[in-house]
Formats: sequence, structure tokens, C-alpha cells
Amino acid sequence: MKQLADMVTAEIIDHQANQKYKPLSKPSFKLDEVLNKNPFKEDGKSFEGLLKLITREIYKETSLPSNPRFLGYIPGPSNFISNLADYIISSFNSFSGSQLVGKGPAKVERQTINWLLDSIGLPKSGGGLFLSGGSMANMSAMETARRNFHSDNWRKFKVYGATQTHASVKKGLRVLGFEPYQYEPIDHDENFAIDLAKLEKQIKKDLNDGFIPFVIVGNAGTTNTGAVDNIKKLRKIANEYKMWLHIDGAYGAAIVLTEEGKQLLSGIEEVDSITIDPHKWWFQPYEAGCLLVRNKEHLLNAFHIEAEYLKETYDDSEQLNYYNQGIQLTRNFKALKLWLSLQFFGVSEFRRAIQLGMDLARRVEENLHDQDGWTIVTPARLAIINFRPKLKKNDSQQEDKLTRAMINRFLQDGQYIITSTELLGRPVIRLCIINPELTRKEIDQLCLYIKNVRDELISDKDYLNLN
Amino acid sequence: MKQLADMVTAEIIDHQANQKYKPLSKPSFKLDEVLNKNPFKEDGKSFEGLLKLITREIYKETSLPSNPRFLGYIPGPSNFISNLADYIISSFNSFSGSQLVGKGPAKVERQTINWLLDSIGLPKSGGGLFLSGGSMANMSAMETARRNFHSDNWRKFKVYGATQTHASVKKGLRVLGFEPYQYEPIDHDENFAIDLAKLEKQIKKDLNDGFIPFVIVGNAGTTNTGAVDNIKKLRKIANEYKMWLHIDGAYGAAIVLTEEGKQLLSGIEEVDSITIDPHKWWFQPYEAGCLLVRNKEHLLNAFHIEAEYLKETYDDSEQLNYYNQGIQLTRNFKALKLWLSLQFFGVSEFRRAIQLGMDLARRVEENLHDQDGWTIVTPARLAIINFRPKLKKNDSQQEDKLTRAMINRFLQDGQYIITSTELLGRPVIRLCIINPELTRKEIDQLCLYIKNVRDELISDKDYLNLN
Repeated sequence: MKQLADMVTAEIIDHQANQKYKPLSKPSFKLDEVLNKNPFKEDGKSFEGLLKLITREIYKETSLPSNPRFLGYIPGPSNFISNLADYIISSFNSFSGSQLVGKGPAKVERQTINWLLDSIGLPKSGGGLFLSGGSMANMSAMETARRNFHSDNWRKFKVYGATQTHASVKKGLRVLGFEPYQYEPIDHDENFAIDLAKLEKQIKKDLNDGFIPFVIVGNAGTTNTGAVDNIKKLRKIANEYKMWLHIDGAYGAAIVLTEEGKQLLSGIEEVDSITIDPHKWWFQPYEAGCLLVRNKEHLLNAFHIEAEYLKETYDDSEQLNYYNQGIQLTRNFKALKLWLSLQFFGVSEFRRAIQLGMDLARRVEENLHDQDGWTIVTPARLAIINFRPKLKKNDSQQEDKLTRAMINRFLQDGQYIITSTELLGRPVIRLCIINPELTRKEIDQLCLYIKNVRDELISDKDYLNLN
Repeated sequence: MKQLADMVTAEIIDHQANQKYKPLSKPSFKLDEVLNKNPFKEDGKSFEGLLKLITREIYKETSLPSNPRFLGYIPGPSNFISNLADYIISSFNSFSGSQLVGKGPAKVERQTINWLLDSIGLPKSGGGLFLSGGSMANMSAMETARRNFHSDNWRKFKVYGATQTHASVKKGLRVLGFEPYQYEPIDHDENFAIDLAKLEKQIKKDLNDGFIPFVIVGNAGTTNTGAVDNIKKLRKIANEYKMWLHIDGAYGAAIVLTEEGKQLLSGIEEVDSITIDPHKWWFQPYEAGCLLVRNKEHLLNAFHIEAEYLKETYDDSEQLNYYNQGIQLTRNFKALKLWLSLQFFGVSEFRRAIQLGMDLARRVEENLHDQDGWTIVTPARLAIINFRPKLKKNDSQQEDKLTRAMINRFLQDGQYIITSTELLGRPVIRLCIINPELTRKEIDQLCLYIKNVRDELISDKDYLNLN
């Protein structure tokens, strides 16, 4: 086993050292052929050959979100200590759903959850659990709210979120059996945060129409622009109408660790539930999502089950039987990776790394200001910035065409992963800069690259006219 | 990094070699104190110290389901090749939900799903995806059925399963917004399989009462007894009433790889959806569940989403964008571990290991027959056997007391993890023997140990009288 493990470690180190800055392969590579030549057979194959197949062929057609040059979507800047934790987690393979057979994992999970509660500012009476990611956390939050709400008549419930709210909220509600009309997207304001006046107007209208205002889903960092809703005001509205306040902080809540972030997220300590994704800006490998709730009883009320084959696991520490606090029965020891990397690097290292992301996004903004010919559509905010090329003629159709052409070029080049989003009906180039391996120098190179692509496409007059 | 990885590998090898046969610690050990002495601090700590803390302290109060002496619940006999795969999965940290940035993972997942479809006997037009485990797979199956059923009026739907159906089905339905009365538990027959006559009677009654018979949840190996429903007859009933047939094969479907199993699961190739858990009898570390469906379009119909920030990922290979086939958006490269271990060991090794479990359970049964004083409550079936001590007086109250006392002793001794379940209202000792590291000799020792515990407790007359 040592020999095989050494081979794997060598491949991983080689990847970290040499391949990490090559995010996209040439699309000509034929993975289908390779896989067809390697069907599952009765007899086994050499480990070395399979390992090379994985690292040299399968991952070749793959753009890794942990690569510093992956700046699209939300990147996945993992860390090698947590990778080792995942190796331990699988090798010891504990069942972390119940404390009878998994007391160690359950207690470590509780310690980690307590620290997260404390970081957010939630009370010790709060609870939480690790799950696969933001989609499951948001959905579990809605279910927790439903089972703990003051009314049983959930067919009349209405959920409110900004139009910029993550699609997983709507998807989760659909899975939970809510009808499409029960989710009310509220227009965003000029900062792409929820429009508070429109929110309250809609709540009043729904009350009049016989609906029951149920949950406000606020954003602590939208996926599109990093916008943060005014959490204090959302709390006030939620209180007034006796609603549940959930915050989707999957991507953005990590900034509570910084001074700047604490200010931005003011009021976050007042939520009923919050989604955070350690596998995003807390530098964990996939999958590590987390749901925190203000009152740990709420999770038990929502997810408790009884089964004759689980009788031995009942004891006085119900709070450590995590299978009663979420959908999953069997769970692996997810908490360990965040626990180990926080212990090893120390909290200050996380704080520094998160601050760096916000600083480097501002550096992109400065760069674009210094160059001519860009429109900053949304400023650097929680390490996200949106912009588009500005043409002299001020022709928005041509600008959009150029923006799309640039995105296509980025994907073809494969030097960086840069993706787009749409804001106010127009495409924009979106960068999300949360990888702590990035430097000021890398950022300046990136900006130069983007400028060059734009200039090349503009000088290729045929391109803009013909396409 | 190499140095740290070597330390981890050494600990894991030491665990495999030395600690694996010590499932439970002395309960006196004080983990709370240890954790309190190790709060998260601003500064980092030594990796070596943390690693020892994890392997020597945290896992000490933990009974590992991958331990061969873990015979309670459903054990988790993982394998070291898949553990290494998890190390790779985290270290390369690919996003496996979409094929734009994760083509390699998506294609490997598809190859693995195709092989699983083929093993079950489902057509190539089928689909599937990996998820955390059986709870999520069963729930996702119910959602898939709901969104693809011939009627929209799901508030009238009724779901049928044996009383022995896993609690996750009921829990999943609750999360999906079904009301408790929409799940109808059907009595089991003398083999603890669903009573077909009662099932059909209930369906007819519900039709008369204006309900819509929706899904039959059959079992390919119940958790309690390993019972397998008559899948062919369930299919016939489902066809007659135009229902969806889902099979929960989380624990048991693995036996399709053996000749004996193929016979037992006859008809399994006719299901609409099936849950299987590679992290059980397919020897994968947690978390590796899987949902397979007869028609891959059904998953897309149920889980497709649109979002402006995902526009680049739409292409002609919709089937490889797994975020459109389940609840999760971000997913890690779960398929790799099953893929790698199947490739490395070869399919025949899996077949042998699964057959071994069934054979060794039968050996337990023979042992109990050879000894005097046992009632076999359910025979060795899919590697599960249930039994209880038989007292001469035939006093069922005393027998039950003794059974419970034995279970308590097992847990206190900590030599084996042996748990109980309840059948027909009475406690039984339940063994689940799927760890391929077990041998005939180990099994004979186990049976002797169980006999000794019984004899000791019986000879301790005070015990039975006083407690």
C-alpha cells in the first residue's frame, strides 16, 4: 500500500508543481477513445497505468477550479492540508451521522460548527451541519423553516428573494413541493441587492391576497456581482411580518473573518439560518457545504426520524446524532477537513487569504480604470468584478457582440477560465478572484491578457462586422 | 508536502495493520477535554501533533464501520484503492457537475453509470448519477417520479412500500412535501417481503377513495432482514395501475454481480428507478450513493435549471451536465473511486467478495444450528441474519430481556460491533456480514464469542431476575 500511496502523492505533487497553471486542454484530445479502450474487465489492471490514465488523460480535458487561473463561476481554491484530510477521512471511513459509533467525528463536527456559529455571531444555542454544498444547504434551510414556522398551511407560504438569488433556492423549493408562484423574485436596486421598498410592497400585497409571508432569502454575496443585501433591514422586515430570515452566504459569508467583511455583513448575527460553503472561500475541497441555524432544536424538529434499527443510537446527546438534523443518514467525516486546515494554518491565515481576494479584485478594477475602453458594470465587491469593453461609438449591440466574442476566445485559448454572466439584460465579463495563490503580478498579467484579446478582436474588423 | 503526505500514509498503514481490529474504545476516555485544549487559534499548529490527535484521540472513541468486526447496521467495508482515489479527487478538486469545465470527470461518471446500468440489466438509454448515499437517492427517485408522472395532481398521489422499507423513503417524501397519509406501509409476508395481496387491495381501496396510486417502493434487500420483494410481481402490479416502480437496492443490489444474486433479484431489470449505494456492498468509502433510472430524460425533466451564470455550460451533451440531473450544482468526482477500484481489482474480485458475504452469513447460521439454544428469526439472506437466544422455559419476556442484555454487553465489550433490530415486536440480534476481510475462522470465533456472552449472562442468575 505504501508504494501505491507514494505513487499517488508523487502525481499530486507533480500536478501542484507543473500542471496547475494549464487549466484547459486542447479540445482535440479524444477522451472517448481512451475510455472505450478501458472498459471494466473481469481481471484487474496495473495501478501505475491507471494512475497515469487519470492524471494525464482524464484530468487533461478538465479545467480545475482550484487552479489559480480559474476565475469563472465561483472557483474552488482548495488547500493541500484538507486534501490530506480527505485521504484520512476515506481511509478511516467513520460513520459520522451518529455518536454511538462516531463520537469522535460528532464532537469534532460540533466544535467546528460552534466555531462557525461564533464567527458569524450566532449564539451557542445554535446548530448546524455539514453537507454537500450550497444547494443542499439552501434546500435544507427552507425545509427547516417550513417545519418550524408558526403556521402549518405551507401551501399558502410565500418566499421572497432578489432576482439575483441563486437558482438553487428556486430549485430547492420546487423539490420541496412548493409551487412556482410561491417564490417571489423581487427586483434588485442599483447595487444589485434586493429592493427593500419593493419587497415590503409585495409582502403587503400577498397578505392582502391571503398568502402567508414565510421566508426572506437574503444574499451575503450574490454569485453574479457579490452584492450584499441590507441584512439589518431584512431582519426588521422579517420581524414585522413574523417571517424567517435565511441568508445565502454560500459564497460570500467567509468575509466575516475580516474587519472589512464584518462591516459589510452587518446584521448577519441576527439570521434564523445561513448557508455557507467551506468549499468556496474557506479553501476546502469539494464537497463541503454547511447550514447554520440560530436554534439547534429547529434542525431536530425538521429532520428527526425513528427506525427500529437505530434504537441503540438514542441517548442523551441527541444533538450529536447528525442524521436527525438533515436528510442524510450516512455521512462521512466532512468536518475534519475544515477542522484540520483551521488548526494547521491558524485562523489568521484564512483571514489574510480572504482579504487578499478582495484586495486583488480591487486591483483589477484599478487596472481597468487605468486602461481606457472599459465599462465597470459592477465594482470589485467580495472579490467579484463585472465589466465590458466600451466602444467609442457607444453601440451597445456591438459591445455585446465583442463581449461574447471575448468570452469565446478566453475559452478557446484556455489560458484562464473566464466566464460571463448577464446583468440588466446584457452580457458582461465576470471575474471571481478568491484563489490565495494569485499575486499582484499575476493579476496585472491577467488584465494585460484581457486587454490584448479585446484589442485583437477590435482590430479584426471583419469579426465585428460579420458575426 | 511530500513529508506531510508520508506522515499521513504511515498513519493510515499503521491503522490498517494494527488498530483495525479494535473497534470500540473504553468509554472512560475524555475527548471533550482534548478538544477543549485544542480550540481554533490565530496561529497554526504542528501537523504531526494534529495528525496524532486525529488518529490517536479523535478516532479512538469511534467504531469504524470499515472494521471487519463491525457487524452492526450496514457496515462500510471500504478499500484502500478507493481511499487513494478520494485523495486524488480532493487534490485535483474538479467540478464534476458540468462538462464544460469537467469533461473528464463527466465522461468517467458516464462510463461508470453505463456499467452499473448494464450490471442491473437496465438499457443504455438509462441514466443515473452519484450522490451522497441512499437517503438522497431514494428522495431524488421520488422527485423524479413526481415530475415525470402521468398526472400533475401529486397531492392525491400515494406511495406504497413494505413496513420494512427504509425510513429514508418516508423521510424523503416528507421533505418533498408529501403528507404522511400519502405513504402507505403495507404489511410484510412471512419472509418480511411486501405482502402482494395486501398491496393490491390497498391500491384498489385508494383508487376507490379518489387517490392516485403513484409509486411502489420495492426492496432489494431490506436493512432489517435482507428480504427481497418479488420484483416481477411488483412490476406487473405497477403496470396494471400505471405506477412507477422504484427499488431500494441501497444495500442489497450489489448481489446482481453474482449468479445466486441474479436469481434472487429476478425482474430488477424492469424497474423505473433504483437506489444503489457503492459505499456499502461495493466497497467504497463514504459518501458514494447512486440513483439509476430507466430513462435518462426523466432526470433532466425533474432537475433541469437555468441560470444566467451557467450559460456557457449548455451544449449538445446535456446528459453530461450532471447539475441538471440532481439537486446538487457543485459535485466532486465521486465516480472516480468506484471506477478506479473496479479497474484495479477487476470485476471478478468484487463478485468474489460479495459472494463471500453471503457464504459467511450462512456459516453463522450453521454455527447457530450446531449449537443449542438459538432461534433463527430470519435466515442468512443477503449476508444478514437475525436470531435470539432460546430459553428452555420458552419464556419470551425472559428471552427478550436476555437479548437486550447481550446487546448491551456487546457494546460494552467493544470486541465486535453487534446491534439489534426489532422483528414482529421483539428484539433480535442482527449481524450483517459484508466485510471481505472476514474469514471462516473469524466467523467461528465470532459465534463462540456470542455463545459465551449468552452463557455467562444466563449463569448470572441475578441478572435475569433483577434487571
